[in-house]
This record gives sequence, structure tokens and C-alpha cells, in this order.
Amino acid sequence: MSIKIGIVGYGNLGRGVECALKQNPDMELCGIFTRRAPETVKTLTNVKVYGMDNILDFKGKIDALIICGGSATDLPVQTPNLAEHFNVIDSFDTHAKIPEHFANVDTAAKKGGNIAMISVGWDPGMFSLNRLYGETILPDGKDYTFWGKGVSQGHSDAIRRIEGVVDARQYTIPIESAVESVRKGENPELSVRQKHLRECFVVVSDGADKNRIENEIKTMPNYFADYDTTVHFISAEEMKRDHSGIPHGGMVIRSGKTGLGGENSHIIEYSLKLDSNPEFTSSVLVAYARAAYRMNKEGMSGCKTVFDVAPAYLSPSSAEDLRKRIL
Amino acid sequence: MSIKIGIVGYGNLGRGVECALKQNPDMELCGIFTRRAPETVKTLTNVKVYGMDNILDFKGKIDALIICGGSATDLPVQTPNLAEHFNVIDSFDTHAKIPEHFANVDTAAKKGGNIAMISVGWDPGMFSLNRLYGETILPDGKDYTFWGKGVSQGHSDAIRRIEGVVDARQYTIPIESAVESVRKGENPELSVRQKHLRECFVVVSDGADKNRIENEIKTMPNYFADYDTTVHFISAEEMKRDHSGIPHGGMVIRSGKTGLGGENSHIIEYSLKLDSNPEFTSSVLVAYARAAYRMNKEGMSGCKTVFDVAPAYLSPSSAEDLRKRIL
Repeated sequence: MSIKIGIVGYGNLGRGVECALKQNPDMELCGIFTRRAPETVKTLTNVKVYGMDNILDFKGKIDALIICGGSATDLPVQTPNLAEHFNVIDSFDTHAKIPEHFANVDTAAKKGGNIAMISVGWDPGMFSLNRLYGETILPDGKDYTFWGKGVSQGHSDAIRRIEGVVDARQYTIPIESAVESVRKGENPELSVRQKHLRECFVVVSDGADKNRIENEIKTMPNYFADYDTTVHFISAEEMKRDHSGIPHGGMVIRSGKTGLGGENSHIIEYSLKLDSNPEFTSSVLVAYARAAYRMNKEGMSGCKTVFDVAPAYLSPSSAEDLRKRIL
Repeated sequence: MSIKIGIVGYGNLGRGVECALKQNPDMELCGIFTRRAPETVKTLTNVKVYGMDNILDFKGKIDALIICGGSATDLPVQTPNLAEHFNVIDSFDTHAKIPEHFANVDTAAKKGGNIAMISVGWDPGMFSLNRLYGETILPDGKDYTFWGKGVSQGHSDAIRRIEGVVDARQYTIPIESAVESVRKGENPELSVRQKHLRECFVVVSDGADKNRIENEIKTMPNYFADYDTTVHFISAEEMKRDHSGIPHGGMVIRSGKTGLGGENSHIIEYSLKLDSNPEFTSSVLVAYARAAYRMNKEGMSGCKTVFDVAPAYLSPSSAEDLRKRIL
């Protein structure tokens, strides 16, 4: 019997989950839930679309909901509300607010006897796992997370809010010499500016003051002021032709020493090169939805993160098969 | 109160565990158990050495034993025997015999109410985990494991058994062009010969027939015949000067596609560069010893592998701290 999944919210992430479920024959998509008028939503695979108001009708009929909203305003409300009634998975990625989100979701999930898996994806998610494995295996060491080359949605949006900007795409790029120094085990101390570059492609309206816009970007606090930033002004056609993908990636590197006097060095590196950030994140969400359902079936409940999930729960293969085939 | 550890067997791995425990202040080494006469064993940190015959005197006084014997003859006997009386961790690495070893150890561990963690290290171990994460996140994909550059003890031993050979060191080396093709997402079909090279450094006795020895190495079935192999004859001094380390490493690469028509490609790569293979393996064993003890304290028993361990059990940090600091 397949695992019944519902998708809450139908943007890039929701569409990614819809595609990922097609690759997992033990899972079945029962419906997409939206705050929009359901009849206005056209899905990729002709799955049924329901209004959010009707979601409680599905209580007991859906094994896990994958909540595909944003971390700023959607997930802090949706995840606790839904965790009382369903097993849920979200990709909450505001690192600083994870403890608060965890506490809210945990109360609701325990009340309902459900599993709620939060902050699933690649960072937080797979990168967090590799930071944990790295620091526990090599406690006498240092870890480094680099992001990119990839599109940062938040930085692109910040540029779009500048007067005269029609469209923008910002790429975060790790600085190769910094990465190489870490890979050599040199354990450098790296400032924010020494780790990443920011490269911006900007479409402006006719007659806009490019110097002012470039200056506003480069001096914007938090987003750009602490980085070496380059700005390219391009046409709307170039934007569409060259920058319509949503690639991302990065790496977590742990550099550590062993031996009685720390005489031996070791480097652990986990890296991702992703053509589509939302589709990869969706694929991680789907694997953790399987785990959430199975852990709940074994009687577990409450809020969980990737740290709490024994890897075997993620796989459709039996424990025997996994040991024989890939251990 | 610290976790009390015993080491069974005192070779390279046992010494590595002894060093690794010094880096983990929540753990304490209670003693080393050996089949040799205890008074003949000199330890790195002056820890007490006991005969294996006395190990049952420590039942109830040691939280986990790390068994540092070999997979060929030691572990198949020692791990089941000791799992009845202690939480145990081993690094059993004969992939084909894991199901049989698991069954034997599971029976003993359940009888004693203990946790027995088998096949812990980097392959099997961390590489296995990455094969599992890779295939569950990107089911429409292919994975590749490359080993090296590093010393293969088994291949070095095989050369040493040839008549006229005094000493030998064999390096397994991934073929760079194959690795690059995989990293590009080309999903190549690779034969054994296309994935790895074998490079041998050999010291021979005076007057030995080097042509015969080189030929015997290159044509040795299973070990060398299926690979491109190079042989260098060197002096005993060169061997000592240039080849006394035990480096190793390698990578697990998962290449997969997402999207409705598989239009987006993704590469996940996990790589290790290790100055000391036994010391890194020891460091993994120590982290899993912590997990074994904690899982048993929560009431779990039986044989487990890295697939069964929720990552949080590996860390001395609290769940709250992990979520706040590295999620």
C-alpha cells in the first residue's frame, strides 16, 4: 500500500514535490492544497487541487503533508496548525528562528500524536547533517560552509526593490582560493568578504540612473556591503535567455586532526551541484516524508529534524536489502 | 559521568581509538584487552592492559567495547561472543559476509540486551551512508564509489607473498578522467580497469628475478589482472622514507535527474582525504560507541549499522544545542 501525500502550497517547491513523487513508486500524491481558487491552479500531472479550507476533510486519509510555503510568514503559522492533524514536513530555513519554530511545532505535533519534520532540504538539511557528522568524527577540527555558485532569491528580491530596477538575479559565488586553502587543511580564518563574491545581473527601466542603482546595490547593508559585489546591466531578453534557471549548490568541508599529537590531517568534503534548487529541495522533502510516516507508524510523535532520523527510514528498501546491497 | 570504553585488540586501529578518545572529554578509556601477555604491551597513554581471559570481570563496568580485530578471523568470533555481555562496536568490512555477521551478532546482542554496532568506519560506514542518502534523494540516478589514492593492505600483503619479495606497498588510485566524467553528470559505464589504477612499490631480496616478480604481480587474478598496474622496485630505505604512512580516501558520487522529464541534473559528492586510514576509522568508531551506549540506555538492543543510528546520537551536544548551532 502506497504512502499518501498531500502538497500544501503550489509554487516552485510544490511543483518540485509533484515531480519528485513520480520517481518514488511507493508514494502517491492525493492532492494539492492551495489558498488560491482551486479551479485557477493548473498542475503538471493533473492531480486534484483543493482549497485550504477543506484540508481537515482529509484527516486520517493522508499519511503526510509536505508544506511548501515560505519561511517568513507561511510556515510559522501553517506548520504548527497542520501538525496537530497530520504528519507534516517543511523546509523552514530561517536558521535563527529554528528553536522557536521547533517549540511551537513540537507542542502541536505531540497534541495530535503526529510527526512534524522541520527544516528539511539541503541547508538546513543535508549540509546540517554533514556539519554534525564532521564535528563528531573529527572533534579537533574546524568546519566551513560555502554556498554557490547559485541564485539567492533573497538577494535578487532586495535588488528588485530598488527604484528603477525591473528585474534582477544575484549569484552567490564561493571564492576559489578560500576553498582551496580549506581543502589543503590550512584552516584559514576567513572573513565574510573572503568567502563569497556576489554577482548581480540587473534589468533597469528606460532612463534609469545606472550609477545610482549600482551604488545602492553595493552599499546595501547586510545584503551586499560586506562583500565584493559586481553589477552587470543587461536587457530583459538576456535575462530570460541566460538567467532563467535556479541553480545552486555549495559545500561543507570539515578539516581535522588525529593522532596523539594531532600529527595526521583529514579532510571531509560534502558538495552539491544543483541545476534546480527547488527540485533538489523537494526531493529531500519527499524522502523525509517517507521517514515521517514510518516513524509515526512505529509510535513516535513530536517535532523532529534531520538529526533525529535514522537514515534507514528514508529508503523504500528493506533493512536487509540495504545491508546486503550498499553497506 | 563519562562513558566508559574498553578497547579489544591493540594494533593500528586500537591505538587510533586510544588517541581518538583523548579528543572526546565525555568518554573515558578503562582498559585495553589483548590476547598477548598484558605486561608485554606498551600503550601510548599508559592505560591499563588486561588479558582477554579477564574481560568478563568488567561486565557492568564498561559501557561499550570497541573491538579492533581483523574481519577475516577475529571479528566473526569476537563480536558475537562479546555482544552477549557488552555493548560493542566493530569495523567488520568483508562486504559480502555482512548479512551472515549481522545475523550472528544480532542473536547474541538481543540475548544480552545489548547494542552491537557492526561495520562502522568509512567503507563500510560513512560511504555507505552517502550511498543511502544519495539513492533515496535522487532515485533516478546512478552512484559511483572511488577509492584512493591510498594504501590497500590486502593488495600489499598479496605482493609480499610472492617469492623474492621482502616488502611491498600498493596504492589504489582513482582514474582522474573517470572521476571527471562522473562529476560532469555524464553517467559513464565504467569497467573495473577504467575506474582505478594500481601502483606498487616493491623491495626484493638480493638476486631476485624482477621480471618474474613484476609479471606475477600484474597477472595475479582478482588482485591485479583486471587493472592497469605499475610496479616500481625500490630499496628498503626508500620504502621506509617514502611509504611508511597509511593514507587513504576516496569519494561517493551520486548523479541524478529531477523534473517532469528529467530535465535537471544534480551531483552529490562526498569525499575523504585521510592522512591515516586507521586513525580516521577509529574516530568514526568512537562516535558510534557513544551512540551505541546512548541507544542502549534508551532501551534498544540488537545488531545495528550506521543506517540505524539517528545522527543526533553521535554528538556529545544536546539536541537543543545542535538545532541552534549547526542545523
